[in-house]
Amino acid sequence: MDIAIPLFDRFTALDAIGPYETLSRLPGARVTFVAAEPGPVLTDNRMLSLVAERALADLPNPEIVVVPGGIGTRAVMNDAELVDWVRTAHETTQWTCSVCTGSLVLGAAGLLDGLEATTHWMAMDTLASTGALPTGRRVVEQGKIITAAGVSAGIDMGLTLAARIAGDTVAQAIQLGIEYDPQPPFDSGSPEKAPAEVVEICRGVEALIDAGQPAA
Amino acid sequence: MDIAIPLFDRFTALDAIGPYETLSRLPGARVTFVAAEPGPVLTDNRMLSLVAERALADLPNPEIVVVPGGIGTRAVMNDAELVDWVRTAHETTQWTCSVCTGSLVLGAAGLLDGLEATTHWMAMDTLASTGALPTGRRVVEQGKIITAAGVSAGIDMGLTLAARIAGDTVAQAIQLGIEYDPQPPFDSGSPEKAPAEVVEICRGVEALIDAGQPAA
Repeated sequence: MDIAIPLFDRFTALDAIGPYETLSRLPGARVTFVAAEPGPVLTDNRMLSLVAERALADLPNPEIVVVPGGIGTRAVMNDAELVDWVRTAHETTQWTCSVCTGSLVLGAAGLLDGLEATTHWMAMDTLASTGALPTGRRVVEQGKIITAAGVSAGIDMGLTLAARIAGDTVAQAIQLGIEYDPQPPFDSGSPEKAPAEVVEICRGVEALIDAGQPAA
Repeated sequence: MDIAIPLFDRFTALDAIGPYETLSRLPGARVTFVAAEPGPVLTDNRMLSLVAERALADLPNPEIVVVPGGIGTRAVMNDAELVDWVRTAHETTQWTCSVCTGSLVLGAAGLLDGLEATTHWMAMDTLASTGALPTGRRVVEQGKIITAAGVSAGIDMGLTLAARIAGDTVAQAIQLGIEYDPQPPFDSGSPEKAPAEVVEICRGVEALIDAGQPAA
């Protein structure tokens, strides 16, 4: 079972690694990181590169596609090569998935028109502009398309998809293998739960990014 | 503030990426992945490489060290270069941390003697052999040493450390930025919570790895 995770300049690492760390543990799974050209691809903060092993063109028909998000998705929405690859791959996938603003790429490929979908909580308006119906659920299943909320939600999505593919027992074993018994020290993981000043800090960082300045 | 994450053959990606994705968002943070030699380093399942930007010798005095785990830690415990680097760096760190079996490396460096510490739930006996006092808590603070439980616990550890460094509001903003509002589809993330058959599956995979065979 080929699972392709496309990388692009300024993706967010955890968006990709959550699904990788869960789905790679499925029996028979082969995860391949792909990009326009093989080689290192830099993350959003320029502090890390993950290596794309193969070119997009070399893996046109994976059984599963997982598109990560990141500030780079704004450019990717206008990147015909990656958007076309996603659209074509989707014709034969068993599952087409996204994490965070990766759903904007699915939307740009025309896959979300009229479907419920989710993304990072600060990108809901952009998601709606692709024809999707944004929802606040953390993992949204619509047929073979699964979208997950921001960044860390890819872990929950990966376990959900693992259960669909291999059953609850295998998914539970993967959860135990990665000891996913979350105990965050705060309850600040959604805009509804976080203090108002915390939401404002995040919106302020986003505004800096929109203005083209590096975020703090 | 230099944050060094040492990589080694057969590390587990999420062990490293959880702390990276949280701590890199601290104001003034600079995360650097280091290894014996700069270049790509393969993960435990051989499906992914992360790029180490610098050699261990080029970053001897980071303010923060975070050692990830993975099946490769068994060899690293006998790797004098990395163990010596950890021991020496610890003399001047503000925080010395580990995720999963990364604590075995701290133990091999002699840093955990008589201290409470944690690791992956299947490695508690090996941790005890280093002189540490294993505990089942998810994040264990002992002075400037913080150890986290298996794989995904590095996210909780990263947020805990972010709060110690920059205060609760900044840590909450990081949590909201990565939308860490965990909603796993099962409650199977610890051996106390998982069904008995699921625990047995994980122990069986571990036995295969111990026997030198690739895990399913």
